[in-house]
Formats: sequence, C-alpha cells, structure tokens
Amino acid sequence: MDLGRLEANAERMAQKASRLGVALRPHVKTHKCVEIGRIQSGGTPGPITVSTLAEARGFAEAGFGDITYAVPLPLPYLPDAAELGRRIRLNLLLDDEATLAPLEAFAKAQRTRFRVFLKVDCGYHRAGVDPRSDGALTLARRLQASPGVEFLGILTHAGQSYACRSRQEAKAVAEQERSVMDQFARRLRQSGIPVGSVSVGSTPTCCAAEGWAGVTEIRPGNYVFFDAFQAAIGSCEAEDALAFSVLATVIGHYPGRNELLLNAGALALSKDPGPVHVDPHCGFGRLYTAEGLPLRHLRLSSLSQEHGLVQGLAVADYARLPVGSCLRVVPNHSCLAAACFDRYVVLKEGAVSEEWRRIGGW
Amino acid sequence: MDLGRLEANAERMAQKASRLGVALRPHVKTHKCVEIGRIQSGGTPGPITVSTLAEARGFAEAGFGDITYAVPLPLPYLPDAAELGRRIRLNLLLDDEATLAPLEAFAKAQRTRFRVFLKVDCGYHRAGVDPRSDGALTLARRLQASPGVEFLGILTHAGQSYACRSRQEAKAVAEQERSVMDQFARRLRQSGIPVGSVSVGSTPTCCAAEGWAGVTEIRPGNYVFFDAFQAAIGSCEAEDALAFSVLATVIGHYPGRNELLLNAGALALSKDPGPVHVDPHCGFGRLYTAEGLPLRHLRLSSLSQEHGLVQGLAVADYARLPVGSCLRVVPNHSCLAAACFDRYVVLKEGAVSEEWRRIGGW
Repeated sequence: MDLGRLEANAERMAQKASRLGVALRPHVKTHKCVEIGRIQSGGTPGPITVSTLAEARGFAEAGFGDITYAVPLPLPYLPDAAELGRRIRLNLLLDDEATLAPLEAFAKAQRTRFRVFLKVDCGYHRAGVDPRSDGALTLARRLQASPGVEFLGILTHAGQSYACRSRQEAKAVAEQERSVMDQFARRLRQSGIPVGSVSVGSTPTCCAAEGWAGVTEIRPGNYVFFDAFQAAIGSCEAEDALAFSVLATVIGHYPGRNELLLNAGALALSKDPGPVHVDPHCGFGRLYTAEGLPLRHLRLSSLSQEHGLVQGLAVADYARLPVGSCLRVVPNHSCLAAACFDRYVVLKEGAVSEEWRRIGGW
Repeated sequence: MDLGRLEANAERMAQKASRLGVALRPHVKTHKCVEIGRIQSGGTPGPITVSTLAEARGFAEAGFGDITYAVPLPLPYLPDAAELGRRIRLNLLLDDEATLAPLEAFAKAQRTRFRVFLKVDCGYHRAGVDPRSDGALTLARRLQASPGVEFLGILTHAGQSYACRSRQEAKAVAEQERSVMDQFARRLRQSGIPVGSVSVGSTPTCCAAEGWAGVTEIRPGNYVFFDAFQAAIGSCEAEDALAFSVLATVIGHYPGRNELLLNAGALALSKDPGPVHVDPHCGFGRLYTAEGLPLRHLRLSSLSQEHGLVQGLAVADYARLPVGSCLRVVPNHSCLAAACFDRYVVLKEGAVSEEWRRIGGW
C-alpha cells in the first residue's frame, strides 16, 4: 500500500466534499484498517461506513464513534447491534417492514432505540425501497413514528455506476443518484416526514459528480485505493492514484507458449472478472515492475488458487523478469483483493515503513 | 462443514486408491485444516500436498511429516523451505533450470539437500516441462545428478479436467494424465534416470479414473468437500456428497422484481464464476434450505462484497424464506469459498459439534 498515493486520494475526496458542501463518511469496507480510516477523516476518527459488524466493533475500539452499517440489518445480528449501539452511534439500514417489526419488539423489550436510515433504491436494484412507491412513504412514516427508532434519513448506493464505461457516463449516474434522493426527500418532507440525512455514494459517482444539491453526505470507499476497474472506467485519471498492489514472484518461464507464471492466484487477487465491459481482454489486473513501471505487453490471463498465468502480448521480456524476480499486480477489485490479506505493508516514499492490520470476519 | 458427508468422501477416495494400488496424498489446500487432513489419511497424519509454506508449517506442527509443496518453488522462499526441510520430508517442485541453479547454490552453501519432483505438463499448460521435449530429459538428468537434490520422481496436475462437462469426458483426461506420465517415466528410465514417484491428480480425474497403471500416487484435494462445480461436471454423483456450505441470512424481499437478498457476497463465497461451460446460468452456487433441501427455483444471480442477490426462477417462496431466516449456499468453488473463513463449524448428524481452525496466509 503506497502511503503517498493513498494520502493524495484521501485528500482529493475530502476537499471535493468540503468544496461541494457535503459531509464525507468514507466506506471503510475497502481497507478495514483503522489507520487508513483516520487518514480519510483528516487524522482523527470521523464518521465512517462499514459492511460488517466486525468492522464496526474494530473501529469503535479505535475511537470511531459514528458508524453506519450499510447492509440491510440481518435479524440474527439484532442483539450485537443493540450492544454496540449503546457504546457508539451505530446507524442501521432498513428497507422492509418484515425487519422493522422484530426490531421494534427487540427495542421495546430491551428499552433501547435503534438509529435507522431508510435504504432507497436509486436504480441499482440490489436493496432499498422504490422511492416512487406508496410502500416507501408508508415505511418512512412507520420509521418516523416508531418509539424504537430514531429515524436518521435516507440512504442509497448507485452501484449501477459500475456498469459505466467512462467518467462522462458516471456523471449521468451521479446526477440520477442525487436527483432521485433529492426528490424523495422532498416527497417525504411534503408528507410531513422530517428527513435529516440524505446520504449517497459510490466511488464512480463520487469521483464524477459535479454537484450534490439536496445531499448531506457521501460514502465512497474504493477511492482511497482505486484499482484496475476504477482506472478502466475513468474514476481515477492517473495511474499514480493506484495505491494498492500485490507483490508477486515469477515462478516460471514458458517461452514456448510465451507465458510467465506468478505465485499470486485467486487467493491473493480474488477472481473478480474486472472491467470486461470496457475491455473483454482485461485479465485479472494490471501488471507493473516492482518499482511501478507499467508492463503493458503482459496480461494476467488466468488465475487458479495460487497461480497466476501471464501471457505475453508482444514477446514477454524474460530477461527483465527473471524467475525469482518480483512484479506488482494492481488487482481488478481492490476491496476483494485486500480481503485476501490480514495486514498491509505500508510503502512510504518507496520504502517499507510499517505494517497495518486489517479487521476480518463478520 | 458436514462431517458425515466429509468422512464418506474421504473414505470413498481412500478405498479407490487402495483398490487401484496407488498411494493417496490428498491436497489439503481445499480445507487447510489439520483435523480434516487426519480424516483423509485414516485418523493419523499421512502424506499430504499443500499449496503454501504456511500450510506446510501448520501441518508439520500437527505431526504431518511428509509434505509436497505443489507450486513451483518461488526462489525467495528457499531459506524457509530449507529450514522446514530439516524438520520434515518437504518435497518441492521444479520445472526450470533457472530455479535449479540458485537452489543448488543454496544447498551447497547450507550443506543441505532438497527433495525435488520434476513438474510435468500433461496438457494443462500452466506449469511443468513438456514431457516430449529434449529439455525435460536434460532437466531430469540434471536433477538426478545434482548433489544438492534428492530426485523423487515426476508430478503432474491435469487441471484441464476442469473444462470437462461430464464424468465421461473426465475419464478421457484421466487416461491422458496417466498415460503421459507413464510414458514419460518409461522414457526417463530408458535414458538411465531412475524414477521413484509418479504422481498425478485432480479431483475430476481422480473421481473418473478407472485405472492408474504406472502411477504411484494421486493428489486430489477438492473431493473431500466437493462443490457446485464438481457436481455440475459429474465428479460427485449425489448431492449428499456436498460437504461444505455457507449459511446465509435472508436480509430482504423484493417481490416486485422477484428477488431475495442474502448477507453472503463475494467475501463469503468468492467470485468464482462456476461451471458456466455446463450451465451458463449457474449463478454463484447452489441454494438449499438450512436443513439441506434443494431450492431449485432460486438462482444466486449476482454477488457484491457482502450481498448476494437471489432471483426467483418460478415465483420465489417468500413465506418459506422469511426475512431473517437462513439458507445454505453450496459455493461454486469450495477451495476459494472456504478461504473466506478462519474456521469451520462442524456439523455432526445435523448438530453443531465443534469448530476447526483453518491455516491462512503464505
């Protein structure tokens, strides 16, 4: 993990949020590392977003006191969420009456309240209520009136932005994400339902957006590392924004088929297929020398558990990459590849400075 | 992890190996768990295959004393391999003169010897020497004559069997794997190079093979768990061979688009695309009720980091799978999905009996 690149990525997004008048609540699921979380909020623990209760607990222990758990709450986790919610501001997501009823019953029995966002579907069609539906209004009203709930506002994730092929396309999705949420907030307010937070965010839309009128906070995550996917769809403009890579060793030369073998496979890089909609031959990541020079004539064409097979597009440069030498893979999806490891090796100005722990599990 | 199913899978392969006169050296990369390794070798530590030195060290500590590290040796790992090789029989793989020279120099300097297999390409084209080439013979001769090397024999992995669509097709690949190795062993012996072990193995070929003439040992790994991929290509005949599953919680109902949402995504199941060559619509695993009844009308159609989206093929049965309930996913590739966890919950006759640790890292 290249500290200089990461700090620049963090600073760029923080400045954009500040300039456009929204709060930044980074999604730490990308890195799950408290040191990186602190960098993202300017050196001290700030508001964050997490994808697991394990992250929430780990960051809470490190002093982070305002955490949004951005997956619709799995009901078996209610007791753990309540326990953590007594120590910090833990903000939950809900999009279903079927979750609200047991949550209310639990809150009543335990004499507690849950801080809850209404999750909205702005076009991704993964989770969230349809903001044009009657049911969305009914559920918001139920949340607002529930004695077991502190209704925080509305939240969405424009995951459809990952289908974009350029920053221009992502800009249109960002505007869709913003306008859907702004209109839904107005609809709720017109119905007498106060809306505090209007929360949006995905890295492609947060990088491309030019304004967030009506939005109060953004929750990008991947922007702090970026990866081969984000580079291909234009979320980051320069290769020097790519802050996370996997160092692999060349373990074989096969000049007969113009291939090299690496000791990095699916368990070091994940099997994310990458930006195939932009480049069907993208392979499993971008390749660089250990020092960071691009190896554009090589493609990481297939992965098995612990092997990565590299194809030479021109003749592979075996002398430059002898057996036993190292090269860098910037993976397709840094959130998934980083999850293959339990710590980061931190590179500061090209030299290893320290190791930072990741929080795994659920 | 269903203990009864796992024990039956282990027993079936052990009996087949015994019946057909070959040693069984299971590849423990699938589970990386010493308790399971012991079951595979009949209750006591037996010869095993590993994919990382971390596995080798972990199993060595648990009493396994004959371990093949079945990835062409990354040169930076030479000192660690030498250290471990002083304590147990650690068998390395080599397919390249470029690795042999530094290995010999290291052996000489450290006054040690490395136990080495010559890795052979029997048609997978990932690693290994071409057994028809002059270079293969030259390298075998070099290994046999090297003072730093104890030449153990030849080893291959017919990974091309994963492209098979049926047990019938895998049988043909198994015969190819066997005959390539048998012929190469004869060629070496005719050239005056003694060949001890002739080692083959992949789960599809080991399940399909009907004879191993000329082979001394087999190294299947996945057969102890199986998965949706192996079931689709006919490696296991019955669904009750599927010993590994991920228990997930339903976190949303979306009847408008006939979908359910699970809290199991790419970090719990891996993004292995599965047997798309057999069923382009296979999705990311097979779905079952928590009790193990198949849910054939549902498809796990997409995964993000912590979400799994389930499509109803017929109308999804929401009453049977209420929000908060659990279901089981048998993943596409159990070796990759198991690596998402640090331990197994062991089910014995349907009840949780204990937890077994996995060995992660490299």
